[in-house]
Amino acid sequence: MYVRVVVDAFGQMLRDGTGPEIIERDDGLLSAAKLIYFAPVARWPAVERRALRWVRGRVLDVGVGGGRAALELQRRGRSVVGIDVSQGAIEVARARGVRDVRLQALEDVDESLGHFDTIVMFGNNFGLFGSPGNAQRLLRWLRPLADRIVAGTSNPYLSEDPAHLAYHERNRERGRTAGQLRIRVRYRELTDPWFDFLIVSPDELTAILEGTGWGVRTLLEQDGSPYYVAVLE
Amino acid sequence: MYVRVVVDAFGQMLRDGTGPEIIERDDGLLSAAKLIYFAPVARWPAVERRALRWVRGRVLDVGVGGGRAALELQRRGRSVVGIDVSQGAIEVARARGVRDVRLQALEDVDESLGHFDTIVMFGNNFGLFGSPGNAQRLLRWLRPLADRIVAGTSNPYLSEDPAHLAYHERNRERGRTAGQLRIRVRYRELTDPWFDFLIVSPDELTAILEGTGWGVRTLLEQDGSPYYVAVLE
Repeated sequence: MYVRVVVDAFGQMLRDGTGPEIIERDDGLLSAAKLIYFAPVARWPAVERRALRWVRGRVLDVGVGGGRAALELQRRGRSVVGIDVSQGAIEVARARGVRDVRLQALEDVDESLGHFDTIVMFGNNFGLFGSPGNAQRLLRWLRPLADRIVAGTSNPYLSEDPAHLAYHERNRERGRTAGQLRIRVRYRELTDPWFDFLIVSPDELTAILEGTGWGVRTLLEQDGSPYYVAVLE
Repeated sequence: MYVRVVVDAFGQMLRDGTGPEIIERDDGLLSAAKLIYFAPVARWPAVERRALRWVRGRVLDVGVGGGRAALELQRRGRSVVGIDVSQGAIEVARARGVRDVRLQALEDVDESLGHFDTIVMFGNNFGLFGSPGNAQRLLRWLRPLADRIVAGTSNPYLSEDPAHLAYHERNRERGRTAGQLRIRVRYRELTDPWFDFLIVSPDELTAILEGTGWGVRTLLEQDGSPYYVAVLE
């Protein structure tokens, strides 16, 4: 058996638009979920709808994907720059009406993009920071470039799923935090490279922010859901 | 990365009941589909609804799965024995009301189960014959055990999908028919063993039947779909 490794399985998934999104974790877990990337605001998680009022001014949408957040923010009169490392995402977001999208990694954001009032990372996109160390380094780097970050993540400690608990334990044995996931996107015959994706508890988030110049302004949480949105300033 | 091989990913998928069903092919293709295993008759493929009137008398349901066919046939007054190699399928089919279900492979069907008027293999379950050679051998074996077989399969040559066409070509290079698939079920952290699953065109079906004592009574086909149901006598 062989697996063809072709970059941008994610983009092809967005181009086709049917889903589901299949994520493979490095313990072999496959998870499949309906595509969130095109969801109209009415079908967003309630905490993201609430988070919209924290998004002001000129906005950077990190991991613009299919453009659901960028499009909603444009409708609300915001000026939005969307970035993504997926060529397919860029094409799809542009075709759907996001006016300024760029093929660019979070790591490469600098003053050439101008100053942002708000950086938006919906849909667990806080995870794009990758690891606690990387998050700390990047947050410090982003400090002069933006006034506020509105980022979604999931508290790994609220899961009772045995497969997840075993993965957390395995991570701890390796000196990683529970929510330091290593995952890749699979789509039909396409497989994206493995990447680090970080989910954090509120306590872990606070620890990461230490020394970065950022602090938690508020946490938007939702009963019964591990997903929450952090507003950082 | 490691993959835990645990038999009965399929059964666990049925127990949980949410799907989607993820099938991995040995070229790395992942396909995801809504669970068909609990579908009420109104949501079956039209050709299977038409095929119901060819199912008479005492029935063997091969690959009973979640019991959708067996339950509908029971409702129509048929006496049904369901077999499956998945312990989870057996449990689920029984819990949903299939009265006679047994953990048994198609290969192990013999006169101890009694004589059947009809063997039913809906949902592409003709594929459980595995390969043309195996199909021929088993069909010959089943000849004295049943009067009719009503089996669903898909014509591989109606696909225009490049991934499928490449797979067909690869199969031909290896001396296999286009539709000799090698697949496995993946569900969350569980992975079933690889198995052979055969889909055939009507011509290939006719060739397989030669010398088995079975012939095609009728083919139930559907415009625009590769899926069809063969009635063999």
